Amino acid sequence: MIYPPSLIRLIEALRCLPGVGPKSAQRMAFHLLEKDRNAAGLLADALQKAVVDVGRCQRCRMFAEAELCPICANASRDRGTLCVVESPADVAAIEQSGSYRGTYFVLMGHLSPLDGIGPDELGFAQLETLLAEGSVAEAILATSTTVEGDATAHVIAEIAARHNVKSSRIAHGVPIGGELEYVDGGTLAHALAGRRTLT
Amino acid sequence: MIYPPSLIRLIEALRCLPGVGPKSAQRMAFHLLEKDRNAAGLLADALQKAVVDVGRCQRCRMFAEAELCPICANASRDRGTLCVVESPADVAAIEQSGSYRGTYFVLMGHLSPLDGIGPDELGFAQLETLLAEGSVAEAILATSTTVEGDATAHVIAEIAARHNVKSSRIAHGVPIGGELEYVDGGTLAHALAGRRTLT
Repeated sequence: MIYPPSLIRLIEALRCLPGVGPKSAQRMAFHLLEKDRNAAGLLADALQKAVVDVGRCQRCRMFAEAELCPICANASRDRGTLCVVESPADVAAIEQSGSYRGTYFVLMGHLSPLDGIGPDELGFAQLETLLAEGSVAEAILATSTTVEGDATAHVIAEIAARHNVKSSRIAHGVPIGGELEYVDGGTLAHALAGRRTLT
Repeated sequence: MIYPPSLIRLIEALRCLPGVGPKSAQRMAFHLLEKDRNAAGLLADALQKAVVDVGRCQRCRMFAEAELCPICANASRDRGTLCVVESPADVAAIEQSGSYRGTYFVLMGHLSPLDGIGPDELGFAQLETLLAEGSVAEAILATSTTVEGDATAHVIAEIAARHNVKSSRIAHGVPIGGELEYVDGGTLAHALAGRRTLT
């Protein structure tokens, strides 16, 4: 290889990023070294700082710098409802909607035995401790609608039932403003099966 | 925003990478913090080391850790032919073909006035000094076949002519093993115009 050793190491290190193959890694390394050495330094600092500073909230497993994330530390949030989601991005999305005042539990994935993701990786023991505490009245299961997401929700519902915690699944159906014509069959089937009585 | 400050900074820093938007940057940051903190540390080190160590070859502008790149430092390479390419990746590709024993000049781009890339950014002054030295007999112009690449080759050919250096353009035509049926019209036109007499 004709590149200097530090450049080869950089190209290889960039491949740890998801979705980055050898060609993209090379393009990224060239871009940083040719046009944006300043940004490369900032990125190195941000990576080091994030690895040191960012941990998990002790209560909900959300990324946090303190022992508790801002939501769990906020006394005005309703600890009676616990929304179980797959990823920190889901927390951000629900928070952005402004329609939820409860707390969260972040699984950081869904059950996927083939990828080695089981109850331990998703913090089921921690979730069970939280549900056993007695403060949670309802667990809202907002895992994805994939087979794995549904299975995860099912297992958590069983855990909740053991501790007399009511569990619910968020509604799946036609998005607001969506036209029936363009909605896929699976969503339509869900929307029909989950219809609500008006009168 | 519900993410801790260090995470937000990391997501923003990742956006300096080419082709990485807000969603990809978030996915990358989550991946590093959830599953691969070790790789994040290695990437930070590799970035810092590359920014410090990797400079440009004084002769050909290729990325190098020493004053000269291994090719320019190699006395057995033919200094009489100079292959002018747009990127370090082009040097790697030609080296891999094993069919060239001359030296290179890496422009790091092509003329593109709208993006602010002119003769200064491409090191034309350095190229002219090299051609004026007298050791180069032929400049092989291997810039891309885009309008900008052709214009860049044209300008360099004029510089070479001023110093009595012969310039040539690499052949463009049907790739080896390519079938005429699947070759695009532009390439076919090039292949026909550049036909060579056999007898």
